[in-house]
Amino acid sequence: MPVITLLTDYGLDDEFAGVCHGVIAGICPEARIIDITHGIPRQDVRAGAFTLARALPYLPIGVHVAIVDPGVGGARRGVALRLSDGRTLVGPDNGLLWPAAGVGGGVSDAVEISGSRWRLEPVSATFHGRDIFAPVAAALAAGHPLETAGEPIDPAGLQMLELPEPRVEEAALVASVVWVDRFGNAQLAARSADLRQPGWSAGGRLRIDSPTGESLTASPGRTFSDVEEGECVLLEDSAGHLALAINRDNVAERLGLRIGDEIRISPR
Amino acid sequence: MPVITLLTDYGLDDEFAGVCHGVIAGICPEARIIDITHGIPRQDVRAGAFTLARALPYLPIGVHVAIVDPGVGGARRGVALRLSDGRTLVGPDNGLLWPAAGVGGGVSDAVEISGSRWRLEPVSATFHGRDIFAPVAAALAAGHPLETAGEPIDPAGLQMLELPEPRVEEAALVASVVWVDRFGNAQLAARSADLRQPGWSAGGRLRIDSPTGESLTASPGRTFSDVEEGECVLLEDSAGHLALAINRDNVAERLGLRIGDEIRISPR
Amino acid sequence: MPVITLLTDYGLDDEFAGVCHGVIAGICPEARIIDITHGIPRQDVRAGAFTLARALPYLPIGVHVAIVDPGVGGARRGVALRLSDGRTLVGPDNGLLWPAAGVGGGVSDAVEISGSRWRLEPVSATFHGRDIFAPVAAALAAGHPLETAGEPIDPAGLQMLELPEPRVEEAALVASVVWVDRFGNAQLAARSADLRQPGWSAGGRLRIDSPTGESLTASPGRTFSDVEEGECVLLEDSAGHLALAINRDNVAERLGLRIGDEIRISPR
Repeated sequence: MPVITLLTDYGLDDEFAGVCHGVIAGICPEARIIDITHGIPRQDVRAGAFTLARALPYLPIGVHVAIVDPGVGGARRGVALRLSDGRTLVGPDNGLLWPAAGVGGGVSDAVEISGSRWRLEPVSATFHGRDIFAPVAAALAAGHPLETAGEPIDPAGLQMLELPEPRVEEAALVASVVWVDRFGNAQLAARSADLRQPGWSAGGRLRIDSPTGESLTASPGRTFSDVEEGECVLLEDSAGHLALAINRDNVAERLGLRIGDEIRISPR
Repeated sequence: MPVITLLTDYGLDDEFAGVCHGVIAGICPEARIIDITHGIPRQDVRAGAFTLARALPYLPIGVHVAIVDPGVGGARRGVALRLSDGRTLVGPDNGLLWPAAGVGGGVSDAVEISGSRWRLEPVSATFHGRDIFAPVAAALAAGHPLETAGEPIDPAGLQMLELPEPRVEEAALVASVVWVDRFGNAQLAARSADLRQPGWSAGGRLRIDSPTGESLTASPGRTFSDVEEGECVLLEDSAGHLALAINRDNVAERLGLRIGDEIRISPR
Repeated sequence: MPVITLLTDYGLDDEFAGVCHGVIAGICPEARIIDITHGIPRQDVRAGAFTLARALPYLPIGVHVAIVDPGVGGARRGVALRLSDGRTLVGPDNGLLWPAAGVGGGVSDAVEISGSRWRLEPVSATFHGRDIFAPVAAALAAGHPLETAGEPIDPAGLQMLELPEPRVEEAALVASVVWVDRFGNAQLAARSADLRQPGWSAGGRLRIDSPTGESLTASPGRTFSDVEEGECVLLEDSAGHLALAINRDNVAERLGLRIGDEIRISPR
């Protein structure tokens, strides 16, 4: 059974995601459709890109559609990418697919699908999910070869996405918040190894400073309940990133953190 | 594979939509269920009606359940409607199904299902989605003929829904907001042709006045990025309606627009 | 076709629920997955437990995964429970599964699955939905016997959940709010029979007092529209509980009610 996954910033209150399901079901009724999420913050290409990359290793090999597309109908291309691990990515060429392509071993073949024969006609200027991305994904899932979906393009010309990296600054580790989940846990663009700084004691308590001027003390830990209720833990999350959490409370709210903010971590 | 689609105002935080899936899966396990949306504003029959009509052309022919039902358990009837294009609509007879019936070519046969043999017993007074609409839809999707689902009724007696129409008033086009999407784009009850008023220059800039007293200047365009970031565009949306948007911002928030509001469009 | 249902407090904005779908589809592609809801209030084990119990009778017999798990990665066990009616429950042993187990006739067999052979390796400390509960559920849905999923444990040792009971106090019936739905209707831990108190006239009007000091008058009724718009009705809801509602308005907002609050009901 072919698998198509969807990740968008459409939300679920409009009919947009449901209509994409409908279009796919009409073209490739045997496909199983998995909604990764439709809750990417509106037009936040980076947040969508990182979420897709986090999810991909746990999804069956399939056609993975991602749509966070503020430039829809404008100059940006629509693309379908065959990855080295056999997955196919479909979406706008605006960096959204870039980290996921890396997770899948890189792009082996790429086509531009803006004028694909598998499009729905007429193509609207504002809803390419319905008119281009969903029907092309369905045709690919139904077994049509990638080269039938559009014009071949050079993978080297695909839009890249700069990945945030942690840095050391005045004896502090500075890391970006890449995601805030429903529980208020803040995923950082940093790994456990980044905590091994000269002069920092392993497992020692840490001071966390947010850009809003708030600060608190965090203990390194494995899971939320390694600290008392209401206390802050810095742990390696399920995606292998450092993440900041408060046991049974919301650290993002407490520190006023949002995606893209930089926090400073230093020994207490 | 039979297709059943669901559109409701149940939201996704309660178990209501999931329970409808469960009831259907128990009766017609081979059906594919597509959630159009469960995010219709609470008890807003008109918003639900227009959303269903917008989505329908992109859904496979199937049984289409819609539930926005403030009168549940009261005098309003439950109905199943066979449309000329082969679709079946199931839901309350309160106008919700009316525009979709038109999209499907009109009603060829109608039955009242309030006392359907396919109901779940006992029938609750407050959750007909679970007890009447889902099981009747599942029975129809499983191949039971429409006439087994209830008592025949005259399609001419179905509850209609008045569709808002644009009007010209003091050299302005006045149009209702029929939907505000997640991006804050405001869909209007008007078409591009309505902009061709005597003395209006084609493609000229327009003044938009909201009922809250806010106003702004909009340029006609094809897509969001046809105007600079933060500027307003009046475009034909993916459903063929005029819609107001701000490139990378939220026009409904900016103008304080809600569904049902009337805006005035005039040459700048 | 095997059925797996999911109930969590993950929300739908993160990729968590989608990733659980992906893991299941990889292990048991023939399973139908039904999302009961992912909108349980964060870490509210009681709310999740009651919601699962309300939904269960309407779901096909299957493997029912529930995850509201503030103690993830800590001392609490993960379990799979075979019920007398043939259902299997999978989730943390923190009381979440307890009411549903009762609905299904009680637990006939139980295994601890924290170290299950069906886990995904490596197991994270914070996302057992992905690494333990989803893959174990998928293996069970694929037909692997319960005893292959973990170590047998004594059902008598499972974590219970105290169920709130109504009580009579100074000529008032005091009942907890166990759920507030999208419409603001407040489900109570009480049944119609509890209204039959000595000296109370059947069908008489009632005074409702909320802990915030607000009060209003309610009429007993069958459904919302049994009272005028804006008036309050006390009805038996679709789960057989007493519930408080205002016709076309939001009683929880009006009275400031939240899950766990106690309201007082007395003759007017």
